[in-house]
Amino acid sequence: MSVRIVGLDADDTLWHNESIFRLTHERFNELLAPFADPETLEARLAETERRNLGVFGYGAKGFTLSMLETALEVSERRVSAGVLAEILAAGREILTHPVEPLPGVREALEQLAADHRMVLITKGDLFHQETKLAASGLGQYFSGVEIVSEKSAETYRNIFKRYGEGAEHAVMAGNSVRSDVLPALEAGSYAALIPYPFVWVNEAADAPVAHPRFKELHSLAQLPAWLAEIR
Amino acid sequence: MSVRIVGLDADDTLWHNESIFRLTHERFNELLAPFADPETLEARLAETERRNLGVFGYGAKGFTLSMLETALEVSERRVSAGVLAEILAAGREILTHPVEPLPGVREALEQLAADHRMVLITKGDLFHQETKLAASGLGQYFSGVEIVSEKSAETYRNIFKRYGEGAEHAVMAGNSVRSDVLPALEAGSYAALIPYPFVWVNEAADAPVAHPRFKELHSLAQLPAWLAEIR
Repeated sequence: MSVRIVGLDADDTLWHNESIFRLTHERFNELLAPFADPETLEARLAETERRNLGVFGYGAKGFTLSMLETALEVSERRVSAGVLAEILAAGREILTHPVEPLPGVREALEQLAADHRMVLITKGDLFHQETKLAASGLGQYFSGVEIVSEKSAETYRNIFKRYGEGAEHAVMAGNSVRSDVLPALEAGSYAALIPYPFVWVNEAADAPVAHPRFKELHSLAQLPAWLAEIR
Repeated sequence: MSVRIVGLDADDTLWHNESIFRLTHERFNELLAPFADPETLEARLAETERRNLGVFGYGAKGFTLSMLETALEVSERRVSAGVLAEILAAGREILTHPVEPLPGVREALEQLAADHRMVLITKGDLFHQETKLAASGLGQYFSGVEIVSEKSAETYRNIFKRYGEGAEHAVMAGNSVRSDVLPALEAGSYAALIPYPFVWVNEAADAPVAHPRFKELHSLAQLPAWLAEIR
């Protein structure tokens, strides 16, 4: 059963993202060092993010609001306006940071786009994701861009139906087992995991190594060869 | 040429939105009264929002970040952590405020949905808009939901093509001349303006009263009758 549609995650699959968040975490820990140690700050921030996920959804703006909220809480509102201004600026930098495609991504997309329908499927903020895709110069390789609020089996089923022959003829490639791999397999698609050095704590899960439609790859550059095997 | 597809704006067309932002503006002005008068605060906040539009896009999270930035600037960083916490809470309230459909909206949607394809077309934050649609209980009337970063003639042309016979067989109804009416007319569609008492300053524009495919309505309840006239 040959693969006609390639679904691709964006952040940390096509370009660096979590590494920028990591730098922002470090800056946050520095700024709030007078109030708590790094471990406490990380734990409190993760707790705030989890609590806010249902209100803010995913993305850099919600993350910035969660940093500010955590700073106010951890300091018991003793944090200075200057530090809060620095946190605001750090959040803004995530949104304006240059978009850097991961090694081999452009070549792999060019190769894949020659004989597949290509769909970018990502969570997060619509405006920010569209801005990043435009800045990456990779937009030309995609027939469509789907910004979704959750990546479920139903999400993949609907998208792959809309873009062609359906989930059985599609592969989803991304860096998250929980968001990219497991629901795509459940939908009946193939799934490729391309791990990124950092994984957001709320996305961690075990890879389904024994699944017949699953493959772990070192880079997107290996995807065309795997798809050739399937076909 | 009969209308088969109904595009509908969401905020201030299906439910109250700007009125909640207005209340938040008032709260913001109160909180920062020690630093500036309401007129100055409104002007500075509008300026911050305009400056940030290219980075934050539309929506309540970006608005909250702009309020915090304005508070820090206007006060020359002398604002207290307590006041910033109040602004953060006010922004959060926009996101968790109950969704209240405007009078007659549910009945009009039910009537329209009987013989049209219904598409919700809105700018703003994907996650927040989906949350509001779910909370409104109006989701059942729509074949599709399109959250877009800009409402241009091309946006409408693409969506109406994807949902059926194309822009010539579609009407767009909303409260903004600039976003809902003018680009839909340019795309070749019909357009109904349903004014809301408050208009965001960046959305103000004159209605094209003489255009043959334009109609101003007092409420969505009048849309079915106008569509019957066209057909």
